[in-house]
Amino acid sequence: MFDPAQAPLGVFDSGVGGLTVLAALKRQLPQEDFIYFGDTARVPYGRKPLEMVRDFALEISQELISRGVKGIVVACNTASAASLPELADKLPVPVWGVVEPGVEVALRMPGQGRIGVLGTEGTLKARAYESHLEAAGREVWSKACPLFVPIVEEGISDSQIARLVAEHYLSERPELQTVILGCTHYPALKGMLQELLGPKVQLVDSAEATAAVVAADLKNLGLVSNEPKTAASIHHLVSGDVTSYLHTAKILGGPLGSVERIYLGQAGRQRDTVSG
Amino acid sequence: MFDPAQAPLGVFDSGVGGLTVLAALKRQLPQEDFIYFGDTARVPYGRKPLEMVRDFALEISQELISRGVKGIVVACNTASAASLPELADKLPVPVWGVVEPGVEVALRMPGQGRIGVLGTEGTLKARAYESHLEAAGREVWSKACPLFVPIVEEGISDSQIARLVAEHYLSERPELQTVILGCTHYPALKGMLQELLGPKVQLVDSAEATAAVVAADLKNLGLVSNEPKTAASIHHLVSGDVTSYLHTAKILGGPLGSVERIYLGQAGRQRDTVSG
Repeated sequence: MFDPAQAPLGVFDSGVGGLTVLAALKRQLPQEDFIYFGDTARVPYGRKPLEMVRDFALEISQELISRGVKGIVVACNTASAASLPELADKLPVPVWGVVEPGVEVALRMPGQGRIGVLGTEGTLKARAYESHLEAAGREVWSKACPLFVPIVEEGISDSQIARLVAEHYLSERPELQTVILGCTHYPALKGMLQELLGPKVQLVDSAEATAAVVAADLKNLGLVSNEPKTAASIHHLVSGDVTSYLHTAKILGGPLGSVERIYLGQAGRQRDTVSG
Repeated sequence: MFDPAQAPLGVFDSGVGGLTVLAALKRQLPQEDFIYFGDTARVPYGRKPLEMVRDFALEISQELISRGVKGIVVACNTASAASLPELADKLPVPVWGVVEPGVEVALRMPGQGRIGVLGTEGTLKARAYESHLEAAGREVWSKACPLFVPIVEEGISDSQIARLVAEHYLSERPELQTVILGCTHYPALKGMLQELLGPKVQLVDSAEATAAVVAADLKNLGLVSNEPKTAASIHHLVSGDVTSYLHTAKILGGPLGSVERIYLGQAGRQRDTVSG
């Protein structure tokens, strides 16, 4: 008999950033199988029109559902900000974003000081963080940081370049109590940002928060896999170049498994599978 | 009677970078009308699979042809490297890329020293520069510089950040006689790169070279517009957000005219027109 609890969990991002969320999910849910979709052909989402990001999110979710996932984690801040709750409305499986878990962690921290949000232009334009935080009565300062993603993907997160860029973005900040890292790439810059902001500022990385929420909800929904496994599987679908995906995935330390190239929105769709 | 010489010239790029080429064309061909297509919804092309870039280039060219252009300038190094000569083969109008004019300028310079090529990953992967230069018997050193485009688009080309990033990319260069700026954004960094490379290194910016080739060919083909005009028109088609296009276009100093949002590859295609 088909048992939905044994189905894999779907995770997607505009590219490789969501691998930090996948890693957190893997730590908290070691017995689960995952299908990760990295839309590397259309990355970045951060500066695209929001309705376009919504279309992409729906298209990818439908692909994941056609592969039998029991739920979908939108491991991309821009896609979460742009497409939830529409996805939750339209899809037949549970959907989680990364924005709300991050907001909840920030709100649970003691103190009522101003909260900073760093993210892509698209994430901030969608105002998902701002509207949640302001609804809770908190003051918000947000700043788009477009250079952070290419810096992380270039593998120079620890450089003087990264530090100068961070100083550039943070030069006009007001006093902040908490800073939400509103992009899945930014945890790679966490140490440097903490140093720059000082030890009193609390940094929120939504990857772990999201994984905790997903784990709790799966349990409540009776969807935790209980099949004994020697090793849970991770299957990656990528819309762009497989070699450069593997290269960047390594920089972000994402867990790897099999990798499949997938052609979206094109006639004569083909598939190439690679083991990685 | 329809006179093809009075038709506009089509120009396209993955985004705003090609505006530097448009500006050079406008200087050398002040009497021509232009239709500029900026594929800002799918920018950047630099890390996309080459066959995808080829599909985009063909799709955009067909859109321009449906609007009656008399010729097409591929004002994007990645698209030029990936899609010429296929475009030249398939299209019913003359097509110019930015790679060959830049190569010709570099080869005309006195001396036989090594030539450096800076560009995106896609441009270098297509090996268009390398194969042309090597066929002419020249040694080539090429380097992908993915951070340059976001730095230019952020408007911090003159910053210490830009200088450090350039030092990072150029740190392991061999001795170079000439350096080709193989991306339409890079002229914004020209002064700083010249300073870093030293006064003996010749920098090649393909925008002016391309405009000169196009002007000469139009004349030979009898396609130069001779209608008296008070002001030639420039019409922009953008696939992404119009507001952020106008913002970045200003940083690159591109000539503006009317701007139209265009929805590619989507059902229910709509159009919004804005005067800018």
